[in-house]
Amino acid sequence: MVQIKRLNDLVSRVKEMPPKRLVAVNAVDEHTIEAVNAAVEEGIVLAILTGNPETIGKTCAGMGIDPARFSIIPATSEEDAALKGIELIISGKADILMKGLLSTDKYMRVILNKDYGLLSPKSVLSHVAVMENKEYHKLLIVSDVAIIPYPDLSQKIIQTGYLIRIAQLMGIERPKVALIAATEQVLPAIPACTEAAIISKMAERGQISGAIVDGPLAFDVAIDKESADIKKIASPVAGDADCLLFPNIDSGNVFYKMNTKMCHSEQAAIVMGAKVPIVLSSRGDTMLTKFYSIALAALME
Amino acid sequence: MVQIKRLNDLVSRVKEMPPKRLVAVNAVDEHTIEAVNAAVEEGIVLAILTGNPETIGKTCAGMGIDPARFSIIPATSEEDAALKGIELIISGKADILMKGLLSTDKYMRVILNKDYGLLSPKSVLSHVAVMENKEYHKLLIVSDVAIIPYPDLSQKIIQTGYLIRIAQLMGIERPKVALIAATEQVLPAIPACTEAAIISKMAERGQISGAIVDGPLAFDVAIDKESADIKKIASPVAGDADCLLFPNIDSGNVFYKMNTKMCHSEQAAIVMGAKVPIVLSSRGDTMLTKFYSIALAALME
Repeated sequence: MVQIKRLNDLVSRVKEMPPKRLVAVNAVDEHTIEAVNAAVEEGIVLAILTGNPETIGKTCAGMGIDPARFSIIPATSEEDAALKGIELIISGKADILMKGLLSTDKYMRVILNKDYGLLSPKSVLSHVAVMENKEYHKLLIVSDVAIIPYPDLSQKIIQTGYLIRIAQLMGIERPKVALIAATEQVLPAIPACTEAAIISKMAERGQISGAIVDGPLAFDVAIDKESADIKKIASPVAGDADCLLFPNIDSGNVFYKMNTKMCHSEQAAIVMGAKVPIVLSSRGDTMLTKFYSIALAALME
Repeated sequence: MVQIKRLNDLVSRVKEMPPKRLVAVNAVDEHTIEAVNAAVEEGIVLAILTGNPETIGKTCAGMGIDPARFSIIPATSEEDAALKGIELIISGKADILMKGLLSTDKYMRVILNKDYGLLSPKSVLSHVAVMENKEYHKLLIVSDVAIIPYPDLSQKIIQTGYLIRIAQLMGIERPKVALIAATEQVLPAIPACTEAAIISKMAERGQISGAIVDGPLAFDVAIDKESADIKKIASPVAGDADCLLFPNIDSGNVFYKMNTKMCHSEQAAIVMGAKVPIVLSSRGDTMLTKFYSIALAALME
């Protein structure tokens, strides 16, 4: 399989696959409809929109889009729109769940309600983003910048698995995973360090397979060979990481926002761990980010 | 006082001041001598070097520098060089302590040894960096990216004070301090959020003065007005922060390294909380970063 090296390659790849069925929840606003429409046009998805049909019709009219290209499921409120979306997923009529115009809180509350069956009792929902930063020679697949504040060791192991799975779907045969901390020293008092040491040893023992996992590594060593050489860190991951696992949301979120605000990077992002991939776009995201996120969700099996 | 808006302004400012007396510990290597020499040439400091006089002489000769422009205090080992440096500080013969060629561990161990008197019993040593990122319209004064792994509330209050003090020395009359978290919501389970709420309320009550302090703020909202508007966060700090307090070293370190490696930013950095400012340069730092750090230390009163 040819490796996906840029976000445009991701789009090309999913265009070759049969379209997935996406349901966008309360998809009544321009931002959501614009991104979904682009994905429909590219043949990446067939789209179902839940929400007030009149509002959807008006928004589409304002954008010069024929609403007939979407299936529309009427809903009476934001919650109802979310529930209708989940019903479609549970009954096997849709493959991807996407957020439209409703607060992340409301959206997540419905997703997290285990009565609805989108999660199994042991599900760990976690956010994975694929960042394209012009300063780096490859895509960076990272977690978790948005959902789990302070993952414990078992959650970090699951997150590592999510990173590896996405990397492999992108055609990276043995992805290099860097477990990020502030230093490469295994400082016993710092969980970011000790848990990274544990996870990388687990990988060495074959308990985590399909990837080269090393940590703790500071961010500079993970992505910059020269920094690794200066610090004399011999690691097959150093300077060439495909995946970064952040120790907590504080560090992941700063990374993510430095990328978007200071480096003007584009990205794709999904939430993993539910029955289907979930697209969690926010108002601040660009159209392209929403579109790439749909493409990433469509890549999932 | 004219405000220091770029690192070059910082250099201009300290050039107008009487030179401070700097002691560089085990200053036997080219990197250290090059930066110290530049600061001496600019009239920012008078320099004392501790270390093996022969090695210092050889290094100077190789660089075409006359060692006579430095005072040299012979030392027999790295530890001895560190101790000699501290003795000069304690006896009032030097104003700035700088690390030369020795491991940060060894250097810090001598500094942290309270028997030597560089710290008072209640001292909180913390790292403050001033970053110049071309993408931002002002300098960013940030803490702590290198020393305290997980500051508790009382340490964060002290760190906030350090940020304000440096901002004021730079001529920012009422600096805007953003207390960084992953979200602006005060989520009770996330200490980054709750402690930010506490500190900003303390500032509102006048318990922290001389600054406008707000948090929790996510990084994008702190530095980008548009992000704040989209999220409808009304804050006098949003989009215009002078200072960033990171909730832990994990997030601060990622910020710092994104700046240097992805954004090619220059910076100045010192350790505050001891009797004098401490320069903690590392091998990976550029000459300019070391030079700017000396200038920042020289700005301190």
